[in-house]
Amino acid sequence: MHDISFTAPTLVRQSVLLDEDAVRILDRRTFPFDIRFVTCTSHDEVAVAIEDMVTQSSGPFFAASAGMVLAARLAARSAGAEQRLAIIDRAAARLIATRPTNNHIRSVVTMMAEAARGLPQDDFAAAMQAVMEEAWEKRYAGNRRLGRNAAELVADGDTILTHCWAEASLIETLAATLRAGKRVKVVCTETRPYLQGSRLTAHSVAEMGIDVTVITDNMAAHAMDRGLVSRYMTAADRVTLSGHVINKVGTLQIAIAARHFGIPYIAMVPAPDRHAATPDDVPMEQRDGRESLMCLGQPTATPLARGWYPAFDVTPPEFVGAIATGDGVFAANALRAHFGG
Amino acid sequence: MHDISFTAPTLVRQSVLLDEDAVRILDRRTFPFDIRFVTCTSHDEVAVAIEDMVTQSSGPFFAASAGMVLAARLAARSAGAEQRLAIIDRAAARLIATRPTNNHIRSVVTMMAEAARGLPQDDFAAAMQAVMEEAWEKRYAGNRRLGRNAAELVADGDTILTHCWAEASLIETLAATLRAGKRVKVVCTETRPYLQGSRLTAHSVAEMGIDVTVITDNMAAHAMDRGLVSRYMTAADRVTLSGHVINKVGTLQIAIAARHFGIPYIAMVPAPDRHAATPDDVPMEQRDGRESLMCLGQPTATPLARGWYPAFDVTPPEFVGAIATGDGVFAANALRAHFGG
Repeated sequence: MHDISFTAPTLVRQSVLLDEDAVRILDRRTFPFDIRFVTCTSHDEVAVAIEDMVTQSSGPFFAASAGMVLAARLAARSAGAEQRLAIIDRAAARLIATRPTNNHIRSVVTMMAEAARGLPQDDFAAAMQAVMEEAWEKRYAGNRRLGRNAAELVADGDTILTHCWAEASLIETLAATLRAGKRVKVVCTETRPYLQGSRLTAHSVAEMGIDVTVITDNMAAHAMDRGLVSRYMTAADRVTLSGHVINKVGTLQIAIAARHFGIPYIAMVPAPDRHAATPDDVPMEQRDGRESLMCLGQPTATPLARGWYPAFDVTPPEFVGAIATGDGVFAANALRAHFGG
Repeated sequence: MHDISFTAPTLVRQSVLLDEDAVRILDRRTFPFDIRFVTCTSHDEVAVAIEDMVTQSSGPFFAASAGMVLAARLAARSAGAEQRLAIIDRAAARLIATRPTNNHIRSVVTMMAEAARGLPQDDFAAAMQAVMEEAWEKRYAGNRRLGRNAAELVADGDTILTHCWAEASLIETLAATLRAGKRVKVVCTETRPYLQGSRLTAHSVAEMGIDVTVITDNMAAHAMDRGLVSRYMTAADRVTLSGHVINKVGTLQIAIAARHFGIPYIAMVPAPDRHAATPDDVPMEQRDGRESLMCLGQPTATPLARGWYPAFDVTPPEFVGAIATGDGVFAANALRAHFGG
């Protein structure tokens, strides 16, 4: 994240680093208790890291595109263009398969695999890296536009409830809010089973100097009932043209409660998915149920029960007050008119 | 729990034991990972155990009343009736102060302190124990009636979602359901921060031979959206005559979601609190916010954030489909007519 005048959170500044020899991914599973990087020397190691949830939210976008540069460095060593592109295509398929609901991986990896076809043979790896850097810069710029747009919806004195880790969307929104001289507080759900809220969101918001309170996932409606929340804002893993918000499981039940209490829900996404008319077009990731029976590696449940872990849920447009994008703020039912063409 | 033909869960069978020398309380904070008892040799140690959350739900009722017997044994050693009753009254006040929202402690302890005034001087401690045993038997019988009544609302093939640990209310309901030949499954929220759902409910339901799935607290609405739940049932720490259900924080947001999805919410309570017309008459316990930043003793949040832990929330009657009591099943708005006289 560039050009913000206060401290940029560690998670934004150092989430994925592309070095000469490897991609280094800040391990979000243990952050902030243990700040360490997972070193991946091949695109396959990057894919495994993504599958193992070393990083999430926009992390897989950066990690997967950096993984494509590792694949390009490997491909640059092979003789012909055909072999080279075969390596690139296999890497793309491998990376896309890691998290099927996350279309940011698919988009950037597909774009890079296509770009590879037009790149010079003699400087292939460096050219792929330039493609990646351009994609990153485009994303940073999109986040900044999104943040400026979403911040228009934040009032001075607001307490914003957020779920999971909305990352650059939230950080850029808070940055633009602070720049505009508005004071805000943040309440965040801890977001089980991986605690992205209590570890990632709370830490990053606090690093910006903003007052932040962590609640467990069962407290959101009660916090609203007690008048402690004036706005509910989350990122979205995807928004469909129909205005459905697909995001971390739990987003839905807070949105239902928010409508009951008259609290506006604002979903933040760089852009809706033009390829997804409705949620039926989105494969929903079902993760291993045993992940819901653990907390930071420790068992939390009787061994006599099974667990269930649907990573995402779907919030219908009637629960969404506004969708803030890089292009501006839209009503959920107005997305198709703007983006659907 | 008596006379159920299948295995009675450990938590129901062995939750609080009154021995010659002490009260032994099954430690629910570590159950079922470590099955151990906290030994309390005085009513003050019992009070500390209740404050430390060694037991909860109906556990404090049993523990506090057994603590009164310890106080009676101490009092029996002092010379005059006045001194004796002063010890009893101090013990009662100490035990009531542990968890102000739990009126089962207050009721049983007040009843025992009043009964103490009419007991024989020469066999004081044994007489107090008999008073306690009668209260326990009355409670068991009430639970069985409640269970039979609530089980009428359960259909063959239901999947019941429950929150926190509804203890005897749930166990007796499931027992009566099974006795009636109806098949059920259970989904339970883990119930942060103390995981009563994933540890206590899931274990006890599984011990009865019933299929049980644990979800994290953010998954309830999504489970409904996916059609996995047909009924929502919880205990209540208190129900007011106005039909408001005061129960573990999180009850409210699931009830709001349940109404949206057309799933009936059934609250189970032996009887509403005749002394509480509305929630304004109920002191709401606010616990130390740091408890929301831990899981099984391990930190779960950045040290840069504060926590918040309201133990209970209030579900208004419009979200409550039925209230099952020992006296029968009532609409939330019909309680006052039956119990308010």
